[in-house]
Amino acid sequence: MRNLVEAIFLQDPPDVPGGVGPAAMDDGAALPFGNRWLVLTTDSYVVKPLFFPGGDIGRLAVCGTVNDLAMMGATEVLGLTCSVLIEEGFARADLERVQASIRAACRDADVRILTGDTKVMAHGELDGLVLNTAGVALCDHVVRDCGLQPGDRLIVTGTIGDHGMAIAALRADLGIEGDLRSDVAPLRDLVAQALAAGGQGIVAMKDPTRGGVASALYEMAHKSGVTLLLDGPAIPLRDPVRATAELLGIDPLHVANEGKALIGVRPDALDNVLAALRNHPLGRDAAVIGTAQAGRAGDLVLDTGVGRRLLREPEGEPLPRIC
Amino acid sequence: MRNLVEAIFLQDPPDVPGGVGPAAMDDGAALPFGNRWLVLTTDSYVVKPLFFPGGDIGRLAVCGTVNDLAMMGATEVLGLTCSVLIEEGFARADLERVQASIRAACRDADVRILTGDTKVMAHGELDGLVLNTAGVALCDHVVRDCGLQPGDRLIVTGTIGDHGMAIAALRADLGIEGDLRSDVAPLRDLVAQALAAGGQGIVAMKDPTRGGVASALYEMAHKSGVTLLLDGPAIPLRDPVRATAELLGIDPLHVANEGKALIGVRPDALDNVLAALRNHPLGRDAAVIGTAQAGRAGDLVLDTGVGRRLLREPEGEPLPRIC
Repeated sequence: MRNLVEAIFLQDPPDVPGGVGPAAMDDGAALPFGNRWLVLTTDSYVVKPLFFPGGDIGRLAVCGTVNDLAMMGATEVLGLTCSVLIEEGFARADLERVQASIRAACRDADVRILTGDTKVMAHGELDGLVLNTAGVALCDHVVRDCGLQPGDRLIVTGTIGDHGMAIAALRADLGIEGDLRSDVAPLRDLVAQALAAGGQGIVAMKDPTRGGVASALYEMAHKSGVTLLLDGPAIPLRDPVRATAELLGIDPLHVANEGKALIGVRPDALDNVLAALRNHPLGRDAAVIGTAQAGRAGDLVLDTGVGRRLLREPEGEPLPRIC
Repeated sequence: MRNLVEAIFLQDPPDVPGGVGPAAMDDGAALPFGNRWLVLTTDSYVVKPLFFPGGDIGRLAVCGTVNDLAMMGATEVLGLTCSVLIEEGFARADLERVQASIRAACRDADVRILTGDTKVMAHGELDGLVLNTAGVALCDHVVRDCGLQPGDRLIVTGTIGDHGMAIAALRADLGIEGDLRSDVAPLRDLVAQALAAGGQGIVAMKDPTRGGVASALYEMAHKSGVTLLLDGPAIPLRDPVRATAELLGIDPLHVANEGKALIGVRPDALDNVLAALRNHPLGRDAAVIGTAQAGRAGDLVLDTGVGRRLLREPEGEPLPRIC
């Protein structure tokens, strides 16, 4: 269904001369703006349940848009919009909880919601609450998701699968939620530090949200025209995530992260970027997980430590309404 | 419910020093930007039914955001975002029809959708289709909704009540839809012409969408600290709208318009602005409908031609999901 919608809405996309438009399917759009860039992004949030260990829909809506801007290299955030869709009869206490979480996330990310909108739908016309945020930011250099060359290294900024597995466990009612927490966090400052350390040695970024690390890496590799060799044992994974993944039969490479970035770097920038990331509270577990190689565009070759296998092209998030 | 949501989300709004933030509840936000202004706005669209005489949800979503930008004086549109929420099983043909309408409206308004998002909700979790658009634009002077002074004149750019009454008649299944058409249209060019003619003699603008002309005028008068004397017989109203309003017992002053602006002008700019508006296809029926006076802030005094009455403070749109 999502593919269908995107196919329809991406039919005959507008030209964005010299910039990044919708046809690029990057994390946002970028317009040349004087000698700088204006970056624009939007996302709707339909996560179910609204509250989960480590966060809620409000924190997700702020961080999601801040992170999409950051993935384009745009950490100079001008402002966010926030639109609220609400089902009549939704509990006031829950609404206040979401609003408090939005405010807290804005403080964490040091961003402001400048304007918003509210629409009410009748009971039964909407399942609770949906948020939409858009964001606008500036930067000097746009970072795309398609800039990898053979020899470039791939960093993940921390453990993978935390958000998706926390939601999956909650939905499966496993009673093990205590060990699982969403990683939802604003990456603005982390990315700013990495960019300061790596400069134009940072050649690609993407946040592995819906579809997970495998899907994001596939897109990066496919668009860049390279194969990625992934070092499986190097991919940081928390024990409870590993255990839940085995229990539920869900590959942690295929579930959403909401506070992680995949960063492609030129070899000579690797040490500086990695040090900058690990020096930040949100990047302590940053690891080098792969290398770009000449080869078929989009191939992901996973070295498991006991052999190599080709990751099948990911089909997206195994659960709906994960973010 | 809407008031509740807005009360909660406008609690402790962020400071926007020197700009227009969410607390202003204007049509959008404005940030000082070099020696210019950056204007940002967003709206979600939940109109029911999705297709109606004169337009559909797609055209509404593009025009609504373009018009909110224009109402702030920002006709130099950089781009729009468009986020699609869709119920699983929604008809592909309808989706294609909406997408074609979005593209046509973008051509009409000469704007581009730069980036978007798609989320699918399960059958029964969402009533069909919801769109969200956000927009970003530049201008040299921001026009607020609160700039009226005693003596200023009020223009409406054309007939009122067309959108709301078309939807209301459709919902009431009156079988008279042929005579009623939504006025949904992008006001970007019309407003640009008016601003070129009136310059800083244009002191206030607002589009009378949800809540209608009465609600928009109340806000303009209340925020400006003036009373408005309205010339009832001068308010342009199409006969089918008048007739349907009487049949349904709905005041045309209280229903949504989607292709009209209320423009406050200094007396010495009136003739130029009016001529510019009437010279444009979307402003042919532009009329002077009132005058700002010293008096209680927000009072709307309607001169009906046979007497004067105080319009009660409007309570908003009489129907839900009108836009």
